[in-house]
Amino acid sequence: MNILDIIEKKKVKSELSTDEINYFVDGFTKGSIPDYQMSALLMAILLNGMTDRETFDMTNAMLHSGDIVNMSHIQGIVVDKHSTGGIGDSTTLALAPILACCGVYVAKMSGRGLGFTGGTIDKLESIPNFDTALSENEFFDVVNKVGCAVIGQTGNLAPADKKIYALRDVTGTVNSIPLICSSVMSKKLASGADTILLDVKYGSGAFMPTPQSALELAQKMVTIGTLAGKRIGALITDMQQPLSDHVGNSLEIIGIIEVLKGAKNRLYNEIKEVAIRLLALTGKYDVKTAEVAFDEAISSGKALNKFAEMVQAQHGDASYILDPSKFEIGKKVEVKADKSGYVTGMTAADIGRAVTHMGGGRMQKTDVIDFSVGVVMKVAIGSCVKKGDVLCQVYHNGKGLDEAVNLIKGAIEIGADKPAEHKIAYAYVDKNGTTLY
Amino acid sequence: MNILDIIEKKKVKSELSTDEINYFVDGFTKGSIPDYQMSALLMAILLNGMTDRETFDMTNAMLHSGDIVNMSHIQGIVVDKHSTGGIGDSTTLALAPILACCGVYVAKMSGRGLGFTGGTIDKLESIPNFDTALSENEFFDVVNKVGCAVIGQTGNLAPADKKIYALRDVTGTVNSIPLICSSVMSKKLASGADTILLDVKYGSGAFMPTPQSALELAQKMVTIGTLAGKRIGALITDMQQPLSDHVGNSLEIIGIIEVLKGAKNRLYNEIKEVAIRLLALTGKYDVKTAEVAFDEAISSGKALNKFAEMVQAQHGDASYILDPSKFEIGKKVEVKADKSGYVTGMTAADIGRAVTHMGGGRMQKTDVIDFSVGVVMKVAIGSCVKKGDVLCQVYHNGKGLDEAVNLIKGAIEIGADKPAEHKIAYAYVDKNGTTLY
Repeated sequence: MNILDIIEKKKVKSELSTDEINYFVDGFTKGSIPDYQMSALLMAILLNGMTDRETFDMTNAMLHSGDIVNMSHIQGIVVDKHSTGGIGDSTTLALAPILACCGVYVAKMSGRGLGFTGGTIDKLESIPNFDTALSENEFFDVVNKVGCAVIGQTGNLAPADKKIYALRDVTGTVNSIPLICSSVMSKKLASGADTILLDVKYGSGAFMPTPQSALELAQKMVTIGTLAGKRIGALITDMQQPLSDHVGNSLEIIGIIEVLKGAKNRLYNEIKEVAIRLLALTGKYDVKTAEVAFDEAISSGKALNKFAEMVQAQHGDASYILDPSKFEIGKKVEVKADKSGYVTGMTAADIGRAVTHMGGGRMQKTDVIDFSVGVVMKVAIGSCVKKGDVLCQVYHNGKGLDEAVNLIKGAIEIGADKPAEHKIAYAYVDKNGTTLY
Repeated sequence: MNILDIIEKKKVKSELSTDEINYFVDGFTKGSIPDYQMSALLMAILLNGMTDRETFDMTNAMLHSGDIVNMSHIQGIVVDKHSTGGIGDSTTLALAPILACCGVYVAKMSGRGLGFTGGTIDKLESIPNFDTALSENEFFDVVNKVGCAVIGQTGNLAPADKKIYALRDVTGTVNSIPLICSSVMSKKLASGADTILLDVKYGSGAFMPTPQSALELAQKMVTIGTLAGKRIGALITDMQQPLSDHVGNSLEIIGIIEVLKGAKNRLYNEIKEVAIRLLALTGKYDVKTAEVAFDEAISSGKALNKFAEMVQAQHGDASYILDPSKFEIGKKVEVKADKSGYVTGMTAADIGRAVTHMGGGRMQKTDVIDFSVGVVMKVAIGSCVKKGDVLCQVYHNGKGLDEAVNLIKGAIEIGADKPAEHKIAYAYVDKNGTTLY
């Protein structure tokens, strides 16, 4: 076998065999196939596509390049939710205790953030003493005892994907559905859950620019996950505005606590939709009984207590969960509307960038995060505002404030016409097909 | 400007600007754009194409990456003939003296061979003392005095093409018409002639597999050459069998001398066609007067004398031209037909490989060539042979004989049915359009 013959086949749109796909993934990962040949092949794949079978094989080849988490230590159904990336996306932290209250397990390994705000792990570390580096045994113990735990990624999951993604990033070969699909799915399958809900984002800043292209990606990922024997579904959601009104590290924890206390905001609606779909996917619930279980977990206060229980089990100070006013936050500045009208759009990525400028996210891997800075939105797309109304509160400690305020002002569009109503999601996909919202 | 934006544009089939093309050719040549980005771009160009304007700009960018030969020292029309590569293609060496007899100048800089047999320069060096490394002044003096001269390539012509071609060769991005066109044309334009005839080969081993694809390439090259202000035409010819019955270094010189003496073989027909097209392109002749001039150059013996004159002017032993029996050649072995029938096909490349195995070509740049080995074909496609008839004579000095004979036996197909008649060419293209033969 020979890389030039493989490039030649893909150039003329032929289907690559399983052996050929294993050959180039393995060869590139081990360094016997150089960057310049791999990038030519990746461009041919981007332009000529891959069948579902090829995409499944590519996913498998990358999955088996590293460790696969063994969830057999957990005595029940393990669910996972994966987002393709969003601003103010703290759903995982609310979902974990809610789902645990509903009798399914969440054993989540998350990443740190780079570029926009912090990652899930950074947000958790804003709770004093919270330990995101439990040993694997301790981690499984907490999951078995509490029902949920969230730690930083351990082990070497899908190193082939890491190396291929780094090359794609610098060769214009990111936006290929089979390549994105195999990249996401190789990592998801490596993380070991048996039931998976994907949250596929569209819009500027997301992998996919339109809801249609995000749906196409979601369908492909559901096909691959189903072929791999997983219970899997995907919601297609937009990235037009931050998911939570709270953006920042401590602030997002505060936002989560509000939802667990029953605040019926946009974040709540999104979390409820995700939770119901996930619970139904497990087969333990249908959509109706899942909704009942969800409502009961919140209204009974059990979900909030479960979150505190998880924090305590991971050595964090649970008193912060029961009294979020203990979180130290920065000095407040208000951003006001400079004209009247409707909020017609938001560049969510720029709100994320604003928080990073104030120290709430990393520009470089080694940056230390300031948990106390962030933004609390007071309007959403569709809000009617008058000149001088507060659009959002900015919490800062002096660093990068002017840049942040300018970014935020530029990010919130105000126009004369009321925009169409914002839907929770564009579509839901599972092995039974696609439902448009 | 930024290489990722350029890749992005070509991915979506947008036309690149002149500045963008200059940017990536220049950046890659100077090393600021790495191989892996260039190969992704080359694959996008291969799959999504380039307009004539883009191809012209790419040709120009590569042309201006190095030296351009200044032919203004020559007092008349300078013509050039370029072949995209063939086995037993020694037409240049016969054309030069014939054209000089017809009053146009041939100032040819040729390459050495690698892979199959020797190059034009190697063939000339089989004439004792022939100097292929004249200084530029001496070279122009010989051209002005004799009318023709052939030397090895000097200067640094189109170094960008050299670097890009080396990458294309290992990334499956050779067979792109705009890339082949800009590669050939950048070198051709750098070599300074004002009238150019291209011999575009098709068939296994050539860049283009079919006559139609070779025609497409030829049309593009004529367009680009015309845009660059050259008088340019292209013949589309096949590589089904060696062009000359003589394959090898000294043997091809002997074959050329036979043509200059008036032998009416296939090589003669090809040379005549090329000469007439080239003479007509200069505008000094039309097709009819060009044929008269060609016939006169041969029948008068002037062309043979002109060849001897050129050899002498380049310090070679001209007595070999007037008495080719002086060339030392290897020991003769005959390859005979193992069945009766018609010669239906030949793998010309394998006959070239056979000569290389015997030492007549280079496997590596540093190999020393044995001028005395080679093959003389006694049959051509369409020949009727009986079992035991001689197919060809192999001249060797012991080295690689068995391998050579096996390659040659495998290369000559004998079948029951008489194949269609072999045409000199499939088509001719110039700025006035395409003529099919």
